Amino acid sequence: MTSWLSEVSWNEDGLVPAIAQDAETGKVLMLAWMNRDALALTAEEGYVVYWSRSRQKLWRKGEQSGHRQKLISLHLDCDQDAVLLKIEQQGGIACHTGRQSCFYRQLIDDKWQTVDPVLKDPATIYV
Amino acid sequence: MTSWLSEVSWNEDGLVPAIAQDAETGKVLMLAWMNRDALALTAEEGYVVYWSRSRQKLWRKGEQSGHRQKLISLHLDCDQDAVLLKIEQQGGIACHTGRQSCFYRQLIDDKWQTVDPVLKDPATIYV
Repeated sequence: MTSWLSEVSWNEDGLVPAIAQDAETGKVLMLAWMNRDALALTAEEGYVVYWSRSRQKLWRKGEQSGHRQKLISLHLDCDQDAVLLKIEQQGGIACHTGRQSCFYRQLIDDKWQTVDPVLKDPATIYV
Repeated sequence: MTSWLSEVSWNEDGLVPAIAQDAETGKVLMLAWMNRDALALTAEEGYVVYWSRSRQKLWRKGEQSGHRQKLISLHLDCDQDAVLLKIEQQGGIACHTGRQSCFYRQLIDDKWQTVDPVLKDPATIYV
Protein backbone atom coordinates (compact mmCIF):
# COMPACT_ATOMS: atom_id res chain seq x y z
CA MET A 1 0.00 0.00 0.00
CA THR A 2 1.28 3.43 -0.90
CA SER A 3 1.65 6.19 1.63
CA TRP A 4 -0.99 8.59 0.30
CA LEU A 5 -3.60 6.16 1.65
CA SER A 6 -2.19 6.59 5.13
CA GLU A 7 -2.78 10.33 4.98
CA VAL A 8 -6.54 9.77 4.94
CA SER A 9 -8.21 10.03 8.35
CA TRP A 10 -10.34 6.90 8.35
CA ASN A 11 -13.20 6.89 10.84
CA GLU A 12 -13.65 4.35 13.64
CA ASP A 13 -15.08 1.91 11.08
CA GLY A 14 -12.13 2.45 8.76
CA LEU A 15 -14.24 4.43 6.29
CA VAL A 16 -14.26 7.83 4.65
CA PRO A 17 -17.23 9.52 2.93
CA ALA A 18 -16.76 9.95 -0.81
CA ILE A 19 -18.66 12.46 -2.95
CA ALA A 20 -19.05 11.62 -6.62
CA GLN A 21 -19.37 14.64 -8.88
CA ASP A 22 -19.81 14.70 -12.63
CA ALA A 23 -16.48 16.09 -13.82
CA GLU A 24 -18.03 17.90 -16.74
CA THR A 25 -21.33 19.32 -15.50
CA GLY A 26 -20.42 19.65 -11.81
CA LYS A 27 -23.61 17.86 -10.76
CA VAL A 28 -23.23 16.05 -7.44
CA LEU A 29 -24.34 12.49 -8.11
CA MET A 30 -24.02 10.60 -4.84
CA LEU A 31 -22.31 10.17 -1.51
CA ALA A 32 -21.04 6.74 -0.55
CA TRP A 33 -18.28 5.28 1.60
CA MET A 34 -14.83 3.87 0.99
CA ASN A 35 -12.43 1.84 3.05
CA ARG A 36 -8.71 1.74 2.37
CA ASP A 37 -9.00 -1.09 -0.13
CA ALA A 38 -11.81 0.64 -2.02
CA LEU A 39 -9.83 3.85 -2.35
CA ALA A 40 -6.68 2.00 -3.39
CA LEU A 41 -8.60 0.03 -6.03
CA THR A 42 -10.32 3.17 -7.30
CA ALA A 43 -6.96 4.80 -7.97
CA GLU A 44 -5.47 1.60 -9.36
CA GLU A 45 -8.30 0.59 -11.68
CA GLY A 46 -9.47 4.07 -12.67
CA TYR A 47 -13.08 3.19 -11.93
CA VAL A 48 -14.79 3.94 -8.64
CA VAL A 49 -14.98 1.21 -5.99
CA TYR A 50 -16.96 1.87 -2.81
CA TRP A 51 -17.42 -0.07 0.41
CA SER A 52 -21.02 -1.17 0.76
CA ARG A 53 -21.95 -0.74 4.41
CA SER A 54 -25.18 -2.71 3.99
CA ARG A 55 -23.52 -5.66 2.24
CA GLN A 56 -20.17 -5.26 4.04
CA LYS A 57 -18.19 -5.82 0.89
CA LEU A 58 -16.35 -3.98 -1.84
CA TRP A 59 -18.76 -2.52 -4.35
CA ARG A 60 -17.48 -1.91 -7.85
CA LYS A 61 -19.99 0.76 -8.77
CA GLY A 62 -21.86 -0.34 -11.88
CA GLU A 63 -20.86 -4.01 -11.64
CA GLN A 64 -24.51 -4.99 -12.08
CA SER A 65 -25.99 -1.96 -13.83
CA GLY A 66 -23.07 -1.14 -16.09
CA HIS A 67 -23.26 2.39 -14.75
CA ARG A 68 -19.61 2.55 -13.87
CA GLN A 69 -17.88 5.71 -12.75
CA LYS A 70 -14.67 6.49 -14.57
CA LEU A 71 -12.31 8.38 -12.31
CA ILE A 72 -11.15 11.72 -13.67
CA SER A 73 -9.56 13.15 -10.54
CA LEU A 74 -9.40 12.47 -6.81
CA HIS A 75 -9.41 15.14 -4.10
CA LEU A 76 -8.92 15.20 -0.33
CA ASP A 77 -10.24 17.84 2.06
CA CYS A 78 -8.43 19.93 4.66
CA ASP A 79 -9.26 17.58 7.56
CA GLN A 80 -8.34 14.60 5.38
CA ASP A 81 -11.58 12.88 6.33
CA ALA A 82 -13.59 13.26 3.12
CA VAL A 83 -12.79 12.63 -0.54
CA LEU A 84 -14.21 14.13 -3.69
CA LEU A 85 -14.26 12.05 -6.86
CA LYS A 86 -14.64 13.83 -10.17
CA ILE A 87 -15.98 11.21 -12.48
CA GLU A 88 -17.52 10.41 -15.82
CA GLN A 89 -20.83 8.65 -15.15
CA GLN A 90 -21.36 5.89 -17.67
CA GLY A 91 -24.94 5.62 -18.82
CA GLY A 92 -25.65 9.01 -17.24
CA ILE A 93 -27.30 7.35 -14.25
CA ALA A 94 -25.75 7.16 -10.78
CA CYS A 95 -28.83 6.33 -8.69
CA HIS A 96 -30.33 2.88 -8.21
CA THR A 97 -33.74 4.50 -8.76
CA GLY A 98 -32.75 5.15 -12.38
CA ARG A 99 -32.13 8.84 -11.88
CA GLN A 100 -29.04 10.81 -12.82
CA SER A 101 -28.28 11.80 -9.22
CA CYS A 102 -29.18 10.30 -5.84
CA PHE A 103 -30.01 13.81 -4.62
CA TYR A 104 -33.31 13.96 -6.48
CA ARG A 105 -35.37 15.25 -3.57
CA GLN A 106 -35.53 18.93 -2.74
CA LEU A 107 -37.05 20.59 0.30
CA ILE A 108 -39.94 22.73 -0.96
CA ASP A 109 -42.68 24.01 1.32
CA ASP A 110 -41.40 21.87 4.20
CA LYS A 111 -41.64 18.69 2.15
CA TRP A 112 -39.03 16.58 0.36
CA GLN A 113 -40.27 16.73 -3.18
CA THR A 114 -38.94 14.67 -6.07
CA VAL A 115 -37.64 17.09 -8.66
CA ASP A 116 -35.60 14.85 -10.99
CA PRO A 117 -37.08 12.34 -13.44
CA VAL A 118 -36.44 8.61 -13.65
CA LEU A 119 -34.38 8.17 -16.81
CA LYS A 120 -34.55 4.39 -16.88
CA ASP A 121 -36.78 1.89 -15.12
CA PRO A 122 -34.68 0.17 -12.41
CA ALA A 123 -36.31 -3.14 -13.40
CA THR A 124 -34.53 -2.87 -16.73
CA ILE A 125 -31.26 -1.75 -15.14
CA TYR A 126 -30.89 -4.65 -12.72
CA VAL A 127 -31.75 -7.76 -14.65
CA MET B 1 -40.14 20.07 14.82
CA THR B 2 -41.58 19.48 11.38
CA SER B 3 -41.92 16.05 9.88
CA TRP B 4 -39.45 16.43 7.01
CA LEU B 5 -36.68 16.24 9.61
CA SER B 6 -37.92 12.81 10.66
CA GLU B 7 -37.47 11.50 7.14
CA VAL B 8 -33.71 11.89 7.42
CA SER B 9 -31.87 8.71 8.43
CA TRP B 10 -29.61 10.03 11.18
CA ASN B 11 -26.62 7.84 12.00
CA GLU B 12 -25.92 6.29 15.41
CA ASP B 13 -24.55 9.66 16.57
CA GLY B 14 -27.65 11.47 15.32
CA LEU B 15 -25.75 13.03 12.43
CA VAL B 16 -25.94 13.21 8.66
CA PRO B 17 -23.14 14.22 6.26
CA ALA B 18 -23.83 17.49 4.45
CA ILE B 19 -22.14 18.52 1.21
CA ALA B 20 -21.92 22.25 0.51
CA GLN B 21 -21.83 23.14 -3.16
CA ASP B 22 -21.61 26.59 -4.72
CA ALA B 23 -25.06 27.01 -6.28
CA GLU B 24 -23.72 29.06 -9.16
CA THR B 25 -20.43 27.46 -10.16
CA GLY B 26 -21.13 23.91 -8.97
CA LYS B 27 -17.84 23.76 -7.09
CA VAL B 28 -17.97 21.40 -4.11
CA LEU B 29 -16.77 23.46 -1.17
CA MET B 30 -16.83 21.19 1.88
CA LEU B 31 -18.33 18.24 3.65
CA ALA B 32 -19.43 18.67 7.24
CA TRP B 33 -22.02 17.15 9.58
CA MET B 34 -25.44 18.15 10.85
CA ASN B 35 -27.64 16.97 13.64
CA ARG B 36 -31.38 17.50 13.66
CA ASP B 37 -31.14 20.93 15.28
CA ALA B 38 -28.51 22.08 12.80
CA LEU B 39 -30.61 21.05 9.82
CA ALA B 40 -33.74 22.61 11.29
CA LEU B 41 -31.90 25.89 11.95
CA THR B 42 -30.36 25.89 8.49
CA ALA B 43 -33.82 25.73 6.90
CA GLU B 44 -35.26 28.22 9.38
CA GLU B 45 -32.53 30.85 9.25
CA GLY B 46 -31.55 30.43 5.60
CA TYR B 47 -27.87 30.22 6.51
CA VAL B 48 -26.02 26.96 7.01
CA VAL B 49 -25.58 25.62 10.54
CA TYR B 50 -23.45 22.50 11.07
CA TRP B 51 -22.73 20.33 14.09
CA SER B 52 -19.09 20.56 15.04
CA ARG B 53 -17.97 17.07 16.01
CA SER B 54 -14.68 18.36 17.48
CA ARG B 55 -16.33 21.06 19.59
CA GLN B 56 -19.59 19.13 20.11
CA LYS B 57 -21.72 22.18 19.51
CA LEU B 58 -23.78 23.89 16.85
CA TRP B 59 -21.56 25.72 14.42
CA ARG B 60 -23.07 28.64 12.55
CA LYS B 61 -20.69 28.53 9.60
CA GLY B 62 -18.96 31.90 9.29
CA GLU B 63 -19.82 33.08 12.80
CA GLN B 64 -16.15 34.00 13.32
CA SER B 65 -14.89 34.47 9.78
CA GLY B 66 -17.95 36.13 8.31
CA HIS B 67 -17.83 33.51 5.57
CA ARG B 68 -21.44 32.50 5.98
CA GLN B 69 -23.21 30.17 3.60
CA LYS B 70 -26.55 31.42 2.35
CA LEU B 71 -28.84 28.51 1.63
CA ILE B 72 -30.21 28.42 -1.90
CA SER B 73 -31.68 24.91 -1.91
CA LEU B 74 -31.60 21.74 0.18
CA HIS B 75 -31.53 18.20 -1.21
CA LEU B 76 -31.82 14.69 0.23
CA ASP B 77 -30.47 11.51 -1.32
CA CYS B 78 -32.20 8.22 -2.12
CA ASP B 79 -31.13 6.52 1.12
CA GLN B 80 -32.05 9.65 3.05
CA ASP B 81 -28.71 9.58 4.83
CA ALA B 82 -26.90 12.45 3.10
CA VAL B 83 -27.87 16.03 2.29
CA LEU B 84 -26.68 18.40 -0.38
CA LEU B 85 -26.74 22.13 0.29
CA LYS B 86 -26.60 24.48 -2.65
CA ILE B 87 -25.30 27.69 -1.23
CA GLU B 88 -23.91 31.10 -1.89
CA GLN B 89 -20.52 31.33 -0.21
CA GLN B 90 -20.03 34.73 1.33
CA GLY B 91 -16.49 36.03 0.92
CA GLY B 92 -15.82 33.28 -1.61
CA ILE B 93 -13.95 31.23 1.00
CA ALA B 94 -15.30 28.06 2.62
CA CYS B 95 -12.10 26.59 4.02
CA HIS B 96 -10.43 27.55 7.30
CA THR B 97 -7.12 27.54 5.41
CA GLY B 98 -8.32 30.59 3.44
CA ARG B 99 -9.06 28.63 0.29
CA GLN B 100 -12.27 28.62 -1.72
CA SER B 101 -12.87 24.90 -1.18
CA CYS B 102 -11.74 22.42 1.47
CA PHE B 103 -10.95 19.94 -1.33
CA TYR B 104 -7.77 21.72 -2.36
CA ARG B 105 -5.60 18.61 -2.51
CA GLN B 106 -5.53 16.40 -5.59
CA LEU B 107 -3.90 13.01 -6.01
CA ILE B 108 -1.18 13.44 -8.62
CA ASP B 109 1.65 10.93 -9.07
CA ASP B 110 0.60 9.08 -5.91
CA LYS B 111 0.85 12.24 -3.81
CA TRP B 112 -1.78 14.60 -2.43
CA GLN B 113 -0.75 17.86 -4.03
CA THR B 114 -2.16 21.26 -3.16
CA VAL B 115 -3.70 22.65 -6.34
CA ASP B 116 -5.76 25.61 -5.07
CA PRO B 117 -4.34 28.90 -3.83
CA VAL B 118 -4.84 30.53 -0.44
CA LEU B 119 -7.06 33.53 -1.16
CA LYS B 120 -6.74 35.09 2.27
CA ASP B 121 -4.32 34.52 5.14
CA PRO B 122 -6.20 32.64 7.89
CA ALA B 123 -4.51 34.90 10.46
CA THR B 124 -6.45 37.82 9.02
CA ILE B 125 -9.69 35.80 8.78
CA TYR B 126 -9.81 34.70 12.41
CA VAL B 127 -8.91 37.74 14.47
